[in-house]
Amino acid sequence: MARSKYEYVKAFEREDKLLPNTWIVVRVDGKGFHKFTKEHQFIKPNDVTALQLMNHAASAVMKEIDDLTLAYGQSDEYSFLFKRDTDYYSRREVKLASVIGSLFTAHYILAWSRFFPDKPLTKPPAFDARAVPYPSIENVRDYFAWRQADCHINNLYNTSFWALVLKGGLSENAAMKRLSKTVAKDKNELLFSEFGINYNDEPEIFKKGSTLVKELKPFMKESRVPRKYADPKFRVVRNDGLDHVIQEITRQETVVTELHCSIIDEAFWIEYPQAVQ
Amino acid sequence: MARSKYEYVKAFEREDKLLPNTWIVVRVDGKGFHKFTKEHQFIKPNDVTALQLMNHAASAVMKEIDDLTLAYGQSDEYSFLFKRDTDYYSRREVKLASVIGSLFTAHYILAWSRFFPDKPLTKPPAFDARAVPYPSIENVRDYFAWRQADCHINNLYNTSFWALVLKGGLSENAAMKRLSKTVAKDKNELLFSEFGINYNDEPEIFKKGSTLVKELKPFMKESRVPRKYADPKFRVVRNDGLDHVIQEITRQETVVTELHCSIIDEAFWIEYPQAVQ
Amino acid sequence: MARSKYEYVKAFEREDKLLPNTWIVVRVDGKGFHKFTKEHQFIKPNDVTALQLMNHAASAVMKEIDDLTLAYGQSDEYSFLFKRDTDYYSRREVKLASVIGSLFTAHYILAWSRFFPDKPLTKPPAFDARAVPYPSIENVRDYFAWRQADCHINNLYNTSFWALVLKGGLSENAAMKRLSKTVAKDKNELLFSEFGINYNDEPEIFKKGSTLVKELKPFMKESRVPRKYADPKFRVVRNDGLDHVIQEITRQETVVTELHCSIIDEAFWIEYPQAVQ
Amino acid sequence: MARSKYEYVKAFEREDKLLPNTWIVVRVDGKGFHKFTKEHQFIKPNDVTALQLMNHAASAVMKEIDDLTLAYGQSDEYSFLFKRDTDYYSRREVKLASVIGSLFTAHYILAWSRFFPDKPLTKPPAFDARAVPYPSIENVRDYFAWRQADCHINNLYNTSFWALVLKGGLSENAAMKRLSKTVAKDKNELLFSEFGINYNDEPEIFKKGSTLVKELKPFMKESRVPRKYADPKFRVVRNDGLDHVIQEITRQETVVTELHCSIIDEAFWIEYPQAVQ
Repeated sequence: MARSKYEYVKAFEREDKLLPNTWIVVRVDGKGFHKFTKEHQFIKPNDVTALQLMNHAASAVMKEIDDLTLAYGQSDEYSFLFKRDTDYYSRREVKLASVIGSLFTAHYILAWSRFFPDKPLTKPPAFDARAVPYPSIENVRDYFAWRQADCHINNLYNTSFWALVLKGGLSENAAMKRLSKTVAKDKNELLFSEFGINYNDEPEIFKKGSTLVKELKPFMKESRVPRKYADPKFRVVRNDGLDHVIQEITRQETVVTELHCSIIDEAFWIEYPQAVQ
Repeated sequence: MARSKYEYVKAFEREDKLLPNTWIVVRVDGKGFHKFTKEHQFIKPNDVTALQLMNHAASAVMKEIDDLTLAYGQSDEYSFLFKRDTDYYSRREVKLASVIGSLFTAHYILAWSRFFPDKPLTKPPAFDARAVPYPSIENVRDYFAWRQADCHINNLYNTSFWALVLKGGLSENAAMKRLSKTVAKDKNELLFSEFGINYNDEPEIFKKGSTLVKELKPFMKESRVPRKYADPKFRVVRNDGLDHVIQEITRQETVVTELHCSIIDEAFWIEYPQAVQ
Repeated sequence: MARSKYEYVKAFEREDKLLPNTWIVVRVDGKGFHKFTKEHQFIKPNDVTALQLMNHAASAVMKEIDDLTLAYGQSDEYSFLFKRDTDYYSRREVKLASVIGSLFTAHYILAWSRFFPDKPLTKPPAFDARAVPYPSIENVRDYFAWRQADCHINNLYNTSFWALVLKGGLSENAAMKRLSKTVAKDKNELLFSEFGINYNDEPEIFKKGSTLVKELKPFMKESRVPRKYADPKFRVVRNDGLDHVIQEITRQETVVTELHCSIIDEAFWIEYPQAVQ
Repeated sequence: MARSKYEYVKAFEREDKLLPNTWIVVRVDGKGFHKFTKEHQFIKPNDVTALQLMNHAASAVMKEIDDLTLAYGQSDEYSFLFKRDTDYYSRREVKLASVIGSLFTAHYILAWSRFFPDKPLTKPPAFDARAVPYPSIENVRDYFAWRQADCHINNLYNTSFWALVLKGGLSENAAMKRLSKTVAKDKNELLFSEFGINYNDEPEIFKKGSTLVKELKPFMKESRVPRKYADPKFRVVRNDGLDHVIQEITRQETVVTELHCSIIDEAFWIEYPQAVQ
């Protein structure tokens, strides 16, 4: 039942369902954020407000899509994990990536003025996205370990680099040269001996990035019920006419919790088993 | 030179370059716009301001990406055409789709308050995207003809449907039933005989959608040059000290032109050969 | 270092590595075997010699490719299982499918005259192939269960159909009509009441298909060693000059074992854990 | 209507239709032919009988599949071109590659003893295959030019290499060293000055490879027709009873023609326009 003779062009679309029974990770990455952060004068090496805005946008995406169970972000990127049996957008690779990229962009922009009330958004931020299937829990954990190891490596470098530039007075080129061929230990020593910075004391959000998990949290709400159906478990707050009472009942809601811990360590995965489903 | 032992997970990414030497169309589609338009009280059947906002966002995307040569939009969707030999994002399918989806989202939101000064954006709009390669100019033209034919079919239906509901006082269900099994001619007659609407007189932007092409337009600008290098072609506006003059010179810039014509007809493709490169 | 200016066309090839860390199944299927079996007068409903030839070809493929751990065949199809971490042909989908298809074809033809000494091969047999990744052991077992369930369903149907035609004197059309809408129980009763056939007594190779697994089997071989290094574990067969002896030693070799058991039942997978690696 | 609860595993198969409206090239390549040619003592640098066997197998594949319009072979590889609008195996990439690879293997083996009556086939030959879409005629021609340029480069090298080894008495290693860093001109001179070989006089089948095209050729056949319907265009050979005659009529059949010309030159494509459809 073609609606026009041109409809044949639809057949040029590729079917792109990701392999069933695999965990899908969607990662969004800032497009040209080197320039974007300069234009909007983000603090170097880490702008904590900008990171909080990223966390806010990611948290909104998590809340909106039930099948997401975990997210991890650092710098200008965020990774989202779908549960193994998700059928969101029929597991279509390009749809999953583009929708999450678009939603993330939307929440980032909508919340901008709340996080940066004094900084107008002069250039539109944009994010590319990709969707990758992982067939085992070990692969999934290694994926997130990969991103967190990357966070650590980049943050140690950036902390050293900007210390040399902002406190040491080196040019950016000189700082780069100074750091080339240094290993982690060298950078730790440089930070401590030259700038009195103990890298271990740096904020966890910088060193570990941000992890979002979902938790069920109880909450109280008042509910009006016919007196004869009042649940004895719950406290009666007051009467409402002759036949009804107002009870304070407990319900559960899904909340997104933000963490800045190691997700390479076993402990995280034991404490939050719901993160991989 | 892996940066960590976890980096092996990168190999699970699929290489997704689209076939070389083909034209690539990226189409963005509003996600859940039925609800979004209700929530933001868009005028039915067509909200011209909302269409102008779509055109604005698409135009900004066109300006930002040199390799885009044509765009066509209707309702809550917009299609973008890359030139045949583009190497934007190395022709990677998911990157192309997600970046254009994200950019479009960004410009849509950033311009919202300009187009709807009295309507706060209460829900984030989002767009999914796809990228499809077409191997011949005929296929490309048929793709755009497909979307425009779709626009016509939908608009005739929606115009009839909302006339029945808003002017005829029918319920939405009754209107749907009334229109089921009608063909184009029936709807034209219904509009005319019952509501005095001559469908042909409806605005072109509703019937034909919006087409964006790029054109080189000359523009004047003042330029300060040493007197001895002044170009006799251009008018001298004034002197600037002894040795310099200010000339009014002509340059060319790429502008995005918005059209509401048939792109099914040959005429469009003859007039704008630059639309398919 | 292109060897000619035409080499750019290589870039039109798709990278087709199958997802890492998944089990890969390659299935070969007879192309036009309805006609092929007619032309070569295969016995209906099952030609045991033809099945043995299939098993021979599959067994040869198993021996040739170390990373294959299991194969299952029925009718004109055979499925081969690669171990999870195989890097055979870099896991390239089309290479894996086409090489196994080609090898299977080669062994089938080369052994034909040994299995059918009185039947010349008048038409070339051909097989299509496909390669599919499975991310869990459960999926792998369900894949093979699927093929064996299919074998059962087809064989019960074919046994009934050819009984009606060959023993009952029905036309092929009449037999088809007679069997339409019958369920398994009906076919079992029809076979028993009309033709005295107890389906359960049919050969296992017909009802269950053929399963190939690899086993390490010890074998004896004579080995010439210096007398002083002779291994007391092994029997000395004879002397060879003054200083050497011939010993009968035991080694292990991989053999392919053919089974006709249920591979849906747990028991098979417990007995042959090496079948899925 | 699943036939068993295991049928869900079918959904793990990827849909692999190649882009519509593109020309598809399938290339088969000998698997481990270095060893295979040694084992079967092929003449070096070129075994003309082995090449003829390749041509025979390719020709049989061409005859069997109507939608193939061109084939080109050299060494142990053969490329087949499908016409642009083919729907053979629904354009499924893996099916196309595997079926052509299997058919080619079958014809190669079946004809072996005819081409090598004194050489038993002791090892099964196998071929891998791939299928690649090309969106323009220029790309298609460049693909075939690429393979023919490759043939030339390899053949010049091999002719020089085996002259050094077989006539010059060099070891294979020494010959390789001698040729490293030589360009085409050097090899031509080496062949001429040291071995009196004028490369230009080498057989075209070695220098250009083999090209197969399809042609319509008229052929005569006797036909029995009622006398009154006899076609005056055709000669009556004899009477057959009172009412019938035997006429010699002309029909057309598709034949596969083998060429050893340049397919890089324009001339070939002008002479055989049917090669790319």
